Amino acid sequence: MDAEDSKPVAEESVRGRLLVAAIALFNRKGYAPTTVREIVDAAGVTKPALYYYFGSKEGIYLAILQESLAYFEGELQVAMETEGSLRERLQRLAAKVYSLFRDHSEVVRLVHAVYYGPPQGAPAFNVHRLHELLVEAIKRLVERGIASGELRAGSVEDTTLALLGATNVCMELELAHPEMQVGETGLRRVLDVVFDGASPVVSRIGE
Amino acid sequence: MDAEDSKPVAEESVRGRLLVAAIALFNRKGYAPTTVREIVDAAGVTKPALYYYFGSKEGIYLAILQESLAYFEGELQVAMETEGSLRERLQRLAAKVYSLFRDHSEVVRLVHAVYYGPPQGAPAFNVHRLHELLVEAIKRLVERGIASGELRAGSVEDTTLALLGATNVCMELELAHPEMQVGETGLRRVLDVVFDGASPVVSRIGE
Repeated sequence: MDAEDSKPVAEESVRGRLLVAAIALFNRKGYAPTTVREIVDAAGVTKPALYYYFGSKEGIYLAILQESLAYFEGELQVAMETEGSLRERLQRLAAKVYSLFRDHSEVVRLVHAVYYGPPQGAPAFNVHRLHELLVEAIKRLVERGIASGELRAGSVEDTTLALLGATNVCMELELAHPEMQVGETGLRRVLDVVFDGASPVVSRIGE
Repeated sequence: MDAEDSKPVAEESVRGRLLVAAIALFNRKGYAPTTVREIVDAAGVTKPALYYYFGSKEGIYLAILQESLAYFEGELQVAMETEGSLRERLQRLAAKVYSLFRDHSEVVRLVHAVYYGPPQGAPAFNVHRLHELLVEAIKRLVERGIASGELRAGSVEDTTLALLGATNVCMELELAHPEMQVGETGLRRVLDVVFDGASPVVSRIGE
């Protein structure tokens, strides 16, 4: 894996190296079969270093997920507070989420494995929270857009899901179907379809 | 699991019982730790029955995925060949995919685990194909809709992804966030947002 791309966990510190090594091993082998010995060997550090920073294998696993969640929440917060039209702000929020997702694909993969994979004795972690944070962020902007007339009057939930769907589908291509990936410019175009509508305007004016 | 809902694999036959039992075990325990003994015990049949129908644990695993894929392909084919406007046909295709997804959630979960989970020595299977089939089906209808003027002129790919995104996000809620699930009527409304646009028509007429 490309450690450089793995902020927030890719500091060149001992702690950062341990996190990067653990993410890679949990992804490649799964949580259960990965040993503390393998993590410290991959990180090029000693066992006491892992125990010092994380206490245990459970501890480093939870640190990966908790710190990723906190980082995501902070970045969403920043992305929410930009200027411009609501449409532009939603575009920017989606672009930010997309770039975070792409730059932290190893963590994303781990979260998916935690959620969809068989239980492996890993400590419980609420991965739903990542999804909830994103839904809440989009929803808050959609609410404001509908209130201000910048978005079409209608259900906040339905509009939120349409925008979330466009964002998610581009991230899924990146993760699972890289040969089909569309990049940030593709994501912008797909969101433009959602904003402008797939049906011709003329067919809707008479409605 | 609810065996009644698990067509194509929930026939009341010995073969069907074996498939249902294997899906449940692979989901609950993972592929690697599941034994032929556990599968036959859960199905209430004998080991030779499993060997007769599937040859091995690998065989029953591949049968689950291959038969699900073939079933999905057949159902997509039928859903593609309905009458009506392209918008209505796309709505119907999405509704069909959604209902298949919901009625076969155990297989869906297994496919996700195969893709995202750690490798467990399970035989290789191209789960991408499911996604490709759906993309191709939507794309074919979008192409016709743009050609006939029923859909707005623009990129076939972008419109396909916007519609796929709306469909996927509703299926993901069903699978991963059941407390937020919107059902088939919700899916229809979210797709309506994509067809009609999240931005007000008035802001687009002058473009």
